[in-house]
Amino acid sequence: MTDILPAPDIARTALAPLVAHALNDELALHVFATAAWSHLAEPGDGVAGRIVGALGPATALHEVVTGGRDGAARNAAELTAQQWKDAVARWRPRWNQRAVLDNLDVARIARIRLLTPEDDRWPAALADLGVHAPLCLWVRGDPGALSLPSPRAAIVGARAATAYGEHVAAELAGELVARGVIVVSGAAYGIDGVAHRVALAAGGVTAALLAGGVERPYPTGHADLIGRIAATGAVASEVPPGSAPTRWRFLQRNRLIAALSEATVVVEAGWRSGSLNTAGHAAALGRPIGAVPGPVTSAASAGCHRLLREFDARCITSADDVLELLGVPTGSTSWLPQTLFDMPDSTGRTDDSTRISDAMSVQSWRRTEDIARRAGMSADDTSAILGLLEIEGVVHRGEAGWRRAPAPRRP
Amino acid sequence: MTDILPAPDIARTALAPLVAHALNDELALHVFATAAWSHLAEPGDGVAGRIVGALGPATALHEVVTGGRDGAARNAAELTAQQWKDAVARWRPRWNQRAVLDNLDVARIARIRLLTPEDDRWPAALADLGVHAPLCLWVRGDPGALSLPSPRAAIVGARAATAYGEHVAAELAGELVARGVIVVSGAAYGIDGVAHRVALAAGGVTAALLAGGVERPYPTGHADLIGRIAATGAVASEVPPGSAPTRWRFLQRNRLIAALSEATVVVEAGWRSGSLNTAGHAAALGRPIGAVPGPVTSAASAGCHRLLREFDARCITSADDVLELLGVPTGSTSWLPQTLFDMPDSTGRTDDSTRISDAMSVQSWRRTEDIARRAGMSADDTSAILGLLEIEGVVHRGEAGWRRAPAPRRP
Repeated sequence: MTDILPAPDIARTALAPLVAHALNDELALHVFATAAWSHLAEPGDGVAGRIVGALGPATALHEVVTGGRDGAARNAAELTAQQWKDAVARWRPRWNQRAVLDNLDVARIARIRLLTPEDDRWPAALADLGVHAPLCLWVRGDPGALSLPSPRAAIVGARAATAYGEHVAAELAGELVARGVIVVSGAAYGIDGVAHRVALAAGGVTAALLAGGVERPYPTGHADLIGRIAATGAVASEVPPGSAPTRWRFLQRNRLIAALSEATVVVEAGWRSGSLNTAGHAAALGRPIGAVPGPVTSAASAGCHRLLREFDARCITSADDVLELLGVPTGSTSWLPQTLFDMPDSTGRTDDSTRISDAMSVQSWRRTEDIARRAGMSADDTSAILGLLEIEGVVHRGEAGWRRAPAPRRP
Repeated sequence: MTDILPAPDIARTALAPLVAHALNDELALHVFATAAWSHLAEPGDGVAGRIVGALGPATALHEVVTGGRDGAARNAAELTAQQWKDAVARWRPRWNQRAVLDNLDVARIARIRLLTPEDDRWPAALADLGVHAPLCLWVRGDPGALSLPSPRAAIVGARAATAYGEHVAAELAGELVARGVIVVSGAAYGIDGVAHRVALAAGGVTAALLAGGVERPYPTGHADLIGRIAATGAVASEVPPGSAPTRWRFLQRNRLIAALSEATVVVEAGWRSGSLNTAGHAAALGRPIGAVPGPVTSAASAGCHRLLREFDARCITSADDVLELLGVPTGSTSWLPQTLFDMPDSTGRTDDSTRISDAMSVQSWRRTEDIARRAGMSADDTSAILGLLEIEGVVHRGEAGWRRAPAPRRP
């Protein structure tokens, strides 16, 4: 509906006294108030989500700043008096109009866009978070990269990844972007970094969700990578520029990665890795989760095995498995046997023909009756099956009976 | 009910003309007829299972040898005329009283016992195979090892195992026998061999099921190992001495491994490994199956990942996981968090206390109001949580406010 306003306009308009409701440019007020809410409320604050949802950001902000003592606001948002009192007590100390305006200035200079839920490019998938959905996203790069029609897969994992994990992350990311999938991750060291890097190298679109402000890349060692992600994709955060990446925000950032992606795949994760938190968010949202297995002797795979064992994650061994999670047709026709019961025979034959074949020799000719007795089958059945096997070319008929053709060596 | 008769008695008695029904020793006849059936019918022959179940082995054998043209036998076993005709056609050519007696002699000399379903030591678990249950078992070693009250776990896997797979098989087998579990396997090279060998080395009981006659160890390279299994446990087969291990018999042998065990664990398996057939039998019997994950880059783990993905196998990373499959209490109280949502904080604290902790500094003292604003929480809540954290010793109170205690470094 609305487009993102250029930062200077917002700043100019918002300088008008907010509490007076005297702004002419309602749109700018809306954007300013949204930005203000990202200062007041920590990520995932459901009370903030409820009141902003009920009243809109501007009116909700007005209520907070003026104290909202008449109860109309909290009634509209179906909040108890206590919930409202507690919420105002945590929001009010953070109210600082100047800081909001300064941040909008910082954003303008750093070419950071404020993406609001009314924007056409707002990712609809975030609505599944309900009252815990982000109130806005601060975006470096192309906000549209977050809502392209392509499927999005989160590829996440341990910072302390092994060479094995990085190899698998690279394989997955490379093949997924080749199939048009957008790779979503958290820009951390280890698995996240490899996923982004390979997605970029393969010419794909990738999106990074950060726990702190997008203008201060974290980890700093990934400043260059994060810049490259922004150059062709998007780097986003729900906290305003200048915000530190706290542990709380990492946990909440994980819910964004999960909510933004149709499926979440954990490539490597220690027993208590933060990646499991991302997978947990995905599971809570009803999104499929996948885990790449590894050696049980590797601590870096313990979290993945936990996901397989306790959380019914799908065992991921290839990009095709991820495409399946995403509901994307893999295109390959299945050549696989549909049951475990007819497999060990490399020729594909089982049951009676296996028994006949077992009863035959490559070296010596045997009579039908002899083969039947050895196979424990009737002479009639044996004769019929020998006929079929002859057509397949796996047995030969001769004067002295039957002989098995030499089998091709198994790989 | 009956005990196994020593072979010489059987042989002597059975020399009386069977078809005349003139035997005095009905018990010996019963055992002789059971042995004869293991010559006539290939493993898993459901028609044989049905007629022997309905008439008993001796009468059923009489019917086959005499032709059973009056239909009484097949009626009793609820077989169609065609089923009966086909079955007799495949059994009759194998009828050779002399061969049965010779085999009972071979068995006596080689100290092989014939275990029949009436024996107290017959493993009750085999009854789940229904009409496909074995008609008898030829056993080297102690037949009682197959029906001890201890839980039995099948540890099976690829012949072409990797060092990783052999390491894991050894760990599992060693810990399982230490917990009193009987390790069941197939005596093949690779995983099977390691499982047996480690079980023996750890002083445990292990049982091997063979596809051929128990007097001709297969593979021959495991003759010594198979002898050692028999010395303290049991080596069993449903086919009589002298029988070759055919592919059909390997597939049917796998059903015995699965049926004898409360759970089947595949340690390593190629994409089409015979171990998957064993797991398939276990699944068909409603027995839990487990698979050990490995690197997705290892072909030797591809079958295990298939079991995890397509057949809902349990992901096995330790002996405790196998004990859980067996329904054996592992004894360790779970210290693990019950949800994925409260994990990444190494101190175990989350939510509000995480936010308070995030808002504090180790270096500088901060006032409660300052901490509240940084955490996005009310001063009252902040004050209350700071009090709790002070009791935990993770924050310190001073003249100038609060300070966070230095955290122990994460591993």
